[in-house]
Amino acid sequence: MRFFSDNAAAACPAAMRALEEANRLATAYDGDEWSARLDEAFSSLFETEVTALWVSTGTAANCLALAAICPPTGAVVCHRDAHIENDEAGAPGFFTHGAKLMLVDGAGAKVTPSALGAACDRIRPDVHQVPPAALSITNATEYGLSYRAAEVAALGAEGKRRGLRVHMDGARFGNAIAFTGERVADVTWRAGVDALSFGFVKNGAMNAEALILFDPALGDTVRRQRKRAGHLLSKGRYLAAQLLAMLENDVWLDNARAANAAAAALAEAAGHERLVYPVEANELFVRMTADEAASIREQGFDFYDWAPGEVRLVTSWDQDMAAVDRLAAAIRSL
Amino acid sequence: MRFFSDNAAAACPAAMRALEEANRLATAYDGDEWSARLDEAFSSLFETEVTALWVSTGTAANCLALAAICPPTGAVVCHRDAHIENDEAGAPGFFTHGAKLMLVDGAGAKVTPSALGAACDRIRPDVHQVPPAALSITNATEYGLSYRAAEVAALGAEGKRRGLRVHMDGARFGNAIAFTGERVADVTWRAGVDALSFGFVKNGAMNAEALILFDPALGDTVRRQRKRAGHLLSKGRYLAAQLLAMLENDVWLDNARAANAAAAALAEAAGHERLVYPVEANELFVRMTADEAASIREQGFDFYDWAPGEVRLVTSWDQDMAAVDRLAAAIRSL
Amino acid sequence: MRFFSDNAAAACPAAMRALEEANRLATAYDGDEWSARLDEAFSSLFETEVTALWVSTGTAANCLALAAICPPTGAVVCHRDAHIENDEAGAPGFFTHGAKLMLVDGAGAKVTPSALGAACDRIRPDVHQVPPAALSITNATEYGLSYRAAEVAALGAEGKRRGLRVHMDGARFGNAIAFTGERVADVTWRAGVDALSFGFVKNGAMNAEALILFDPALGDTVRRQRKRAGHLLSKGRYLAAQLLAMLENDVWLDNARAANAAAAALAEAAGHERLVYPVEANELFVRMTADEAASIREQGFDFYDWAPGEVRLVTSWDQDMAAVDRLAAAIRSL
Amino acid sequence: MRFFSDNAAAACPAAMRALEEANRLATAYDGDEWSARLDEAFSSLFETEVTALWVSTGTAANCLALAAICPPTGAVVCHRDAHIENDEAGAPGFFTHGAKLMLVDGAGAKVTPSALGAACDRIRPDVHQVPPAALSITNATEYGLSYRAAEVAALGAEGKRRGLRVHMDGARFGNAIAFTGERVADVTWRAGVDALSFGFVKNGAMNAEALILFDPALGDTVRRQRKRAGHLLSKGRYLAAQLLAMLENDVWLDNARAANAAAAALAEAAGHERLVYPVEANELFVRMTADEAASIREQGFDFYDWAPGEVRLVTSWDQDMAAVDRLAAAIRSL
Repeated sequence: MRFFSDNAAAACPAAMRALEEANRLATAYDGDEWSARLDEAFSSLFETEVTALWVSTGTAANCLALAAICPPTGAVVCHRDAHIENDEAGAPGFFTHGAKLMLVDGAGAKVTPSALGAACDRIRPDVHQVPPAALSITNATEYGLSYRAAEVAALGAEGKRRGLRVHMDGARFGNAIAFTGERVADVTWRAGVDALSFGFVKNGAMNAEALILFDPALGDTVRRQRKRAGHLLSKGRYLAAQLLAMLENDVWLDNARAANAAAAALAEAAGHERLVYPVEANELFVRMTADEAASIREQGFDFYDWAPGEVRLVTSWDQDMAAVDRLAAAIRSL
Repeated sequence: MRFFSDNAAAACPAAMRALEEANRLATAYDGDEWSARLDEAFSSLFETEVTALWVSTGTAANCLALAAICPPTGAVVCHRDAHIENDEAGAPGFFTHGAKLMLVDGAGAKVTPSALGAACDRIRPDVHQVPPAALSITNATEYGLSYRAAEVAALGAEGKRRGLRVHMDGARFGNAIAFTGERVADVTWRAGVDALSFGFVKNGAMNAEALILFDPALGDTVRRQRKRAGHLLSKGRYLAAQLLAMLENDVWLDNARAANAAAAALAEAAGHERLVYPVEANELFVRMTADEAASIREQGFDFYDWAPGEVRLVTSWDQDMAAVDRLAAAIRSL
Repeated sequence: MRFFSDNAAAACPAAMRALEEANRLATAYDGDEWSARLDEAFSSLFETEVTALWVSTGTAANCLALAAICPPTGAVVCHRDAHIENDEAGAPGFFTHGAKLMLVDGAGAKVTPSALGAACDRIRPDVHQVPPAALSITNATEYGLSYRAAEVAALGAEGKRRGLRVHMDGARFGNAIAFTGERVADVTWRAGVDALSFGFVKNGAMNAEALILFDPALGDTVRRQRKRAGHLLSKGRYLAAQLLAMLENDVWLDNARAANAAAAALAEAAGHERLVYPVEANELFVRMTADEAASIREQGFDFYDWAPGEVRLVTSWDQDMAAVDRLAAAIRSL
Repeated sequence: MRFFSDNAAAACPAAMRALEEANRLATAYDGDEWSARLDEAFSSLFETEVTALWVSTGTAANCLALAAICPPTGAVVCHRDAHIENDEAGAPGFFTHGAKLMLVDGAGAKVTPSALGAACDRIRPDVHQVPPAALSITNATEYGLSYRAAEVAALGAEGKRRGLRVHMDGARFGNAIAFTGERVADVTWRAGVDALSFGFVKNGAMNAEALILFDPALGDTVRRQRKRAGHLLSKGRYLAAQLLAMLENDVWLDNARAANAAAAALAEAAGHERLVYPVEANELFVRMTADEAASIREQGFDFYDWAPGEVRLVTSWDQDMAAVDRLAAAIRSL
């Protein structure tokens, strides 16, 4: 039973139906009627006018956004454990043409305004050092913590004070929103976010992520760079269709809630002592000896070792709740 | 009735069935069993050991290949009308970190050994000029001509003599093979091609293209750069599945033949006088006055004006032959 | 006797004295009093407020300018024979992070408004093509022609109409001004030029060129990128000193006049029939059979063969007029 | 009296004489007889065949070297306080086309084999992370410590074991050698170093640094990239002349010894308690209260505050020993 990655989950029924439907539409690139509807659909969700672009991967969404808000001569402040630093093969350096990542620490992979301020204060204003130009935060974080709108707003204010643009890597944005119950507008543009990588793939899409630009002035550059990076699919209508289908009837939110519920059930089973971080999305980091992990694996559960004495469990939108119950029981009986 | 682009065609039944099947497989990135089978499947088709990688677009396939065979300090020789020069938004410059395209002329967008040689001869060997490092040809060409194996071999030999690696942009490779009936091995690696962008999307896939590396030494760099360019889909199994399904039973070849047959029917209707180029794939460039084009459009046919007095017709794997017959009749009655 | 390149000329007395003087100043990078005086000195010459930066090479001046006015997703329109296209080893692609050069034709390596317009008109406004963002012209041109202010103004107007920024490669700017006698302001910013590479090395400096920015908003980026490209010399005071010394008492203009006078004398000797282009600076392109060229060389004169039946002669600020007279006589007696 | 930077020192007599001499040589770029002699002169010093190239800045030398030994998809391991990380405006990212710097800690800005190994061990071999491809160390370090040959050899062996190429930033290489008295061959290529930035500017040159390549295979790429980065001076003979003049009679070593001697005198005056690091080159980091620093400054001495309670003193080849004695006395009397 699969608890190693939400990337391994199936595409959800709404997404698959959308593909069938898109197969009856004949047009190319992003000139189709569905791509054209993305701006409107996401603007409605975000309660403001946004530019919404489909891309195939979270790395592309993140790095197109970073390239739009950070010049090659600048730096992006991010957490030391951020996905853009650790898991994107140097893509930020590629897309930004060599801009730097400026790493900060913070509990649970969260960036705080004081950490942001301290990082910026270390940089002399002369031309010998690389000035911070942007901030990138991940929500939910790499350790499954969800930012509250007030936290993002504090970061946004500190960033603005220092002239930084703000990007949010929302590979698990749906899970964060499903957990906090806050409005998507409050945790993004109202809090100072300029661009959001709104993840759908981990949440049940097949190959469609959304890049949301709250500053329409960024649109032209990003559209051109999307093509220049080979990310303008000639049959992009299939991506647009998935996104629209998952926005309709809040499928994205229901999917995220299902994954979170599975995680919450496992968290309860694990108990406070075993959890490295509070569980605020669909990831659990659980203290477990190698023997304990082995015994769980013997019962048919798949998951990653994260660190000595620590494993990572990830739940998905399509998690079989019977399997969750069995895993919960297995953990309880350790 | 659609004759404006094969990008606007539907995904073919084999591809769609493959997606359904892939939806029952649980794994991430390219660690799935289908991605693992790609090398073998394409090696069998090409009669030699190849590295085969899925990507989402032809631009990505082309530019990952170019970056692997041309250093930033070098140049890629290509035809003035090549897709990489005119229709990829500068992607070659992005992926190669600023290498140059060195443009040559040639009838029907074909490069000849003499044009290649002349272009290379113009470059002084000093450090002030950019030395050619690679050749990129398109097959079928941008004007629908198909290279014979002997032509490619002559280019390959001339390239080798000058130290160039060779890339083939095969966005319509299937159509070229369907036309010439030659073995894929003969027109590629046996003729000196190092990397092939083997197009599936225009030929009935939804979002999967294949990048074929005949030199396995290129594999590691291309795999890393694919991820670094945001082109490693976390649910890559859906791409692998499409490619495998279209290789099986030669679906790719049947699709290409169907498109070519439609083009051939139209070519016959148009007649030698009207055709700007021989029709050797699924594209027709037809001489037509503006009034003639308008009268055809009034009968419900969609296509692009290409140049003054010239229109482009593109046929697809799923072309309705009744519509083809009606268009053929309309052209005949001009 | 040397007629092959003004790069081979000595540093002029004013420049050498400036080095001695700078050797008594103790400070680092561009924080010295001389670097600080550059803006003022060049602003006075150009009759407007400019930002003036020293760099060590014309390639650096050109490409820092291009990177400041053309985004990676854009193109620079320039003549097919421009130095940036042919003699800078792809530096524009490096500094601009992969922007394209869009080549146009024109007699004597001059760009005309109609050639500029036609090049721009060929580009579709969609995201598949690379939009022109800048124009770069060389003055004096690669064939020794000097732009009049009115010509530049016509290009500037055409450029502005199309949203292009304008760069002038003035490796031989002094020679052009010495020939036309026009005001430097009229042929640059008043004509729409945003950035000028003002050459001093070919005109008698040792290693100092000036990059003049007429739009102060470009200054911050260029200063940072100059450092990022390794072009901020820690002992930059020696460069500033040369520039200031050559501005004082119009040494730069006297040097250019001396080189032009030598070229004019040779031009007269060659006569209209032999000259490929009118001689409007310090370069001559002279029709000459291989035998004729050989006979001249036998008399001790060094120069480049440029094309079959054509040689290039370049004169310098320090040209020995006796040698010029002898070469003139030798040409006359062909 | 100047103790703030060796960049502020004058050019030494040998260098200045060389410029006068070069002014009598007529040739361009690196085709002059002096540039041609560099390989031989440095090969003799290093007791092996090397490729030696002049450049104008240490940043250019460092980053040309890094670009030659680290692909865009790789990482350069270096100390957290390295000049390439902190003081080159992101130049490594520019020259390497976006490769990463992977930072390690270490006393006195030294990298140790165990720190190097640990950094490498943290990287998973999959394509999601950036693999280390090179190591860069600074000698003397940013805190004035000099590597012994045995230390470099241990690093070189650890690097080789892991497939890394090795670069040494020797902005103060002369000072390091003057301190340790070891052979330059032993601390470089015999210890596994592939490329050395051999600093001359801080040691008395005007604008010439040497980039030494111990692997001749790197030469072609570096020569091309030097031009592509705008670092091929047309009058490069003036740089070659300085380097040759400073190699002759070991001027470089005498200059470094003079600077070290001044630093040693100050170190003795400061005493063990005040010194943050042992003084092994020409830099001192001295514990001093703000009041103490102010009192020294009042006596006419210029230097940088480095950290709260810590100042940096840098001595130069041309340090006036009377001033050194007075500063030593001032420090003693604190």
